[in-house]
This record gives sequence, C-alpha cells and structure tokens, in this order.
Amino acid sequence: MVARTANVSRVAVSRAFNPHASIKPEKRDLILKVAQELNYTPDMAARSMVTGRSHLVGIIVPDVSGPWESQELDAMTTALQAEGFATLLFRTRDDLSLDETLLTYMKGFNPDSVIAYAENVRPTTLARVLDRAVPIYIGYPDEEVSEEEAAPLFDRLDVLQRDGIEQAVALMQGYGARRFAFLAGKTNSLATQSRGRMVRKILAERGLPPPILIQGDYMYDTAYRETLNQFRLGEPVDAIFAANDVGAFGAIDALRTELGLRVPQDVKVVGFDDIHQSHWKSYNLTTVKLDLTERTQALLRLILRRLKNPTSPSLTETVSTRLVVRGTVG
Amino acid sequence: MVARTANVSRVAVSRAFNPHASIKPEKRDLILKVAQELNYTPDMAARSMVTGRSHLVGIIVPDVSGPWESQELDAMTTALQAEGFATLLFRTRDDLSLDETLLTYMKGFNPDSVIAYAENVRPTTLARVLDRAVPIYIGYPDEEVSEEEAAPLFDRLDVLQRDGIEQAVALMQGYGARRFAFLAGKTNSLATQSRGRMVRKILAERGLPPPILIQGDYMYDTAYRETLNQFRLGEPVDAIFAANDVGAFGAIDALRTELGLRVPQDVKVVGFDDIHQSHWKSYNLTTVKLDLTERTQALLRLILRRLKNPTSPSLTETVSTRLVVRGTVG
Repeated sequence: MVARTANVSRVAVSRAFNPHASIKPEKRDLILKVAQELNYTPDMAARSMVTGRSHLVGIIVPDVSGPWESQELDAMTTALQAEGFATLLFRTRDDLSLDETLLTYMKGFNPDSVIAYAENVRPTTLARVLDRAVPIYIGYPDEEVSEEEAAPLFDRLDVLQRDGIEQAVALMQGYGARRFAFLAGKTNSLATQSRGRMVRKILAERGLPPPILIQGDYMYDTAYRETLNQFRLGEPVDAIFAANDVGAFGAIDALRTELGLRVPQDVKVVGFDDIHQSHWKSYNLTTVKLDLTERTQALLRLILRRLKNPTSPSLTETVSTRLVVRGTVG
Repeated sequence: MVARTANVSRVAVSRAFNPHASIKPEKRDLILKVAQELNYTPDMAARSMVTGRSHLVGIIVPDVSGPWESQELDAMTTALQAEGFATLLFRTRDDLSLDETLLTYMKGFNPDSVIAYAENVRPTTLARVLDRAVPIYIGYPDEEVSEEEAAPLFDRLDVLQRDGIEQAVALMQGYGARRFAFLAGKTNSLATQSRGRMVRKILAERGLPPPILIQGDYMYDTAYRETLNQFRLGEPVDAIFAANDVGAFGAIDALRTELGLRVPQDVKVVGFDDIHQSHWKSYNLTTVKLDLTERTQALLRLILRRLKNPTSPSLTETVSTRLVVRGTVG
C-alpha cells in the first residue's frame, strides 16, 4: 500500500525502515512521510515470520552496571543499531549462571544472534536451548582449556592476553618489584582463571617467585578488605596485579587510606580492562587494555558472518591486549 | 500439542514459559520437559500477534556506560525480567536527541511500554511515533516548567529534588561555606536546569549570594578542566555543588591534584546521584541520592498500571531525594 502510494518498490519500503540500509535520503523521507499518513508501521513480528530474521541480538550480561560490562554494552548496542539490529538485554543471576526458563524465554524472541558474557553458561546448555542462533563465546586461547564434553557449535572471540600481561610484569619488575600478588576476580570466572595462570607462567619464566593470591570477586569492597587482610595478617608484597580495574581501585585505596603506603613508591599496582575510570586522576591506573572498538567490530563480524553462513563450522576472531601506562607502576 | 501431551491446559503451557507467572514448579518442569522433547518454543512473535502484547519494554538511553545510566538499566532489566518482560535497548545520539528513523524502527517491535531517559525527545515526537506504548517521562515538579505545546498522553515519574538539595546546602553552610559554585551538566539537560534552579532558589532563601556557574557536561574531563579554569582565571569558591557525581570526581581531582587544595578543609564538594563509585575511598563523596530501588519500583508500577488501563489519563508516581553524608563536606 505504501509502495503503491509512494510509487516505489516494496524493497524500497523495506529499506526505508531499516536505519542501516542505504537509500537516498529524499526517497527515505518520502516513504516515511507516506507511511505516516497511512499510519503504517513495518511490523517486525510479522516480518520475522516471513523472513526468518528477527533483527534482534540477545545479549546476556551478569551485571549491566559494572563499568566494564556497561562499556561493552554501550559499544555493542551502538554498533548493532548501525547495522539494523536491536539489542535484547538479559541479566544472569548473581552467581553468573542462567536459569533455563530464562533461556527458553529468550529463545521465544527468536534472536538472530546471542552474545553470552555469562561465563558460567556451558556451550551445551545454550546450544540445547537456542538452535538457530549460534552463541559467541569469549575465549582465552593462550593456554589449553579442555572441553569436558563434546562441544556443540559456537563461535569464538579469542583474546590474546599474553602480550599485555607480560608488558605489565616487565614494567613492574623494571621498577624494582620482586614479590607479586595476584588479586583474583570471582573464582568461577574463566577470565580470572586464565589471567591468574598467565601471570604465574610469566613470573616463572622470569625467575620470580609465584604470586601470592589475594582472593577478590571483581568488586571494590572485597578488593579493599582483602588487601588490608593481606598486609596486616599475611606477607606484604611490593606489586599487586589485579584481575580487573575496579579491584585495583579497591587495593589502591586500602594501601593509601588505611595502610599508609604510597603507590607506586611502596607498592606498584596494575589493573585489567582499561575502563574509562582508570584515567581519573585519583587512580591514574596503569592497566592492560583490550581495545573496545577492535573487540566490538570483531563481535559484529562474527554475528554478520554467521548470519551469512548459518551452517559454517566454528568461526573465530582474535583480539590482543597491550599495557596502558599511567602512574601506578613508576 | 504440548498441552495435549503433557495433559495440561493451553493456559498452563503459556504460564510455564513465562518466568513470572505462578505455576507449581513440578508442573512447570514437566511442561518444559515435554516441550523440549517436542522441540517446541513459544514463539513470542506469533503470540504477540494474537494477544497484542509483545512482552518487550523499550528503554532509550543516552549512553549505556555512564555510571548512573548503567545502574538504572541494570535495576530496570532485572525488575522487568522478574515481571516477564524483556528489555529492548536503544541508544540516542550524543546530543541526546533521537532520530525519527530509530523511533519508527523501535515502533516496529511493538513494545508494551517505552521508558525514555532521553531528555531531548519531546513528548509530541515520541507520541507521534508510538501509539500504543505511552512513554514515561522523568519530571521535576518542584518548579513550574511550562509545556509550549499541547501535551499528548505520557506518564510521569516525578522526582522531588528540593529535600536532598536543601540538606546539602544546609550542611555545607553549617560547615562554613559562603561562596558556592554550581557545576552544571549538559546545558540542554532538563535535570541540570532543574537542579541549577533549585540550588539558586535555596541559596537565595538563605541569604547567600547566587552560585557561580562552572559549565560542565556531566563528564569527568570537562569538570576537571573547568574547575581548574574557575580557580585559576576566575573567583575561587569554598563549595562546589555538582550536577552529578562523576562531575564531582573531576572537580575533586582538579582541586587536589593540581590546585593543591584540600577537600573538605579548603573546598567542600557535593555530588548528585549517589552512584556506586561515590563510596570509593579516594572520593568518599557526600551526595544527593535518589533511591534506586524506589525509583525502579515506581517505573515498574507505571508500566503495569498503564498496561492494565490503556486509556487512563496521565499516571504519576513520585520519588524523593535525600543527602548521603560521607567525607567531602565536613
């Protein structure tokens, strides 16, 4: 109806409603104007039953408000919008797991793709629930992580953590650090396990003693408290490598506010993520960075490649890390 | 088919797939098991064409990664999931406006409700595009804000800012502050305009001189730079009331890192929002709090009340503010 009245093809009408599709601005304006007068809306639900595409991408996050998660989400939502997808947002439970009712519910919305930042969701669980949408997993291939079960199809974003972590250890060692601690995130987190292993490996390669473990959970308060405990009840260290920036902030504040120690003169601190807050002068944190734009573009490519080739074997994109030097090492 | 095989009613099947609907756990498990064996998924798209409900709530945010926005989003997503809704996330342009193509695109998903944290979207614009979903606006009713145009139907969350702002000024005055500055957010932000007016009003009531304006944009870097400019090029002040916490962090770091001034001894600083980072010891910020749980529940009530009474006149919920005292005033 709109096509007829505006004297354009039905394909043109479809393009006019897709923010990403290329179409002459004047033509788009005309079509939208006609559509408005006819009170017409492209019904995504109806269209998806015809095309099989919902133009929805499901994103599963543990906590939207964590600085790292929210940066990811902001970048992904923007990039997806530019490609004509809308973001359907789901939150996991606090123990990082997903209940199956939620997964089944999400399946009902027929997302074209699903990105799981939920580390505790096994590929088998997700695959059993979502059939068409191949999930994307963030992986750490620097080391061997064996799959206990026959892995169903999932795509991977591989993060090479070695470079950034080695640069951090080298810098701290270069400024005199000898006794290291690793401030871990949640124990069931693959990212933390992988980072801890890499730090241990690199220290061993350099002939340094293995790191003391400070058990955190990615949150500020626990990092603050556990750093206090380490220095008051255990052996002091002269370098702390935190599994994430927010944990590093907690450690820094414990050192300066209650332990009367200076950073970096008495204790060096390095974080991981390079969230926006890392550049705030009160922290001025030296940290390992995953380039957010690079990462977002890689995830987007995985989504688009998979949509193009639904039956392709597992697709992989790789991103690397590097050290951002500010003021907490030297 | 599922109903027949599981020997339950079709309504029970529907309930089993809705995480919020109440149904005996054993019954739900049975139905989900049968559904899985039959490879059945409740197609939300198909269902929405029958029921007219999509179980989607559209949320429009300026920037997902801002600490305040991400906290809101996390709370809302969680609360909505508990009520059986999925969150459809949209991001505005950086100037806080929405392009109409995006609004029309969002309309195609047929959201049951839309929450616009986008201050620059006029009610008329949103209403013209979305017909069924009545948008919810965050309003500041302490003062008169006249609508230039005949307002179409929209629901309101009214935030009473007077209490929290007055408590902040009284505390700063009580600790000796006499010359105030207001560190504003983006000029086109209704929240900033409203907060600025309230600060001015309260200072006048207390016989204090009007506040000096430090022009920020809610971001750390601008607050840092503009605070430096004020103290180096303009008149120094002994109290800064920032329109948001992140701006307060920037001001505090400028004062301490480059101006050699102490907080609170030389300059008192108060923020607004009480984001999670305000309790980080390096800032330990005194700030005005909108209770996040109270706010989220109020928004949820607006959504549910509106769904229950689609033709009701404008609905309103009210939340208030109060001061959270930490260490940046005295």
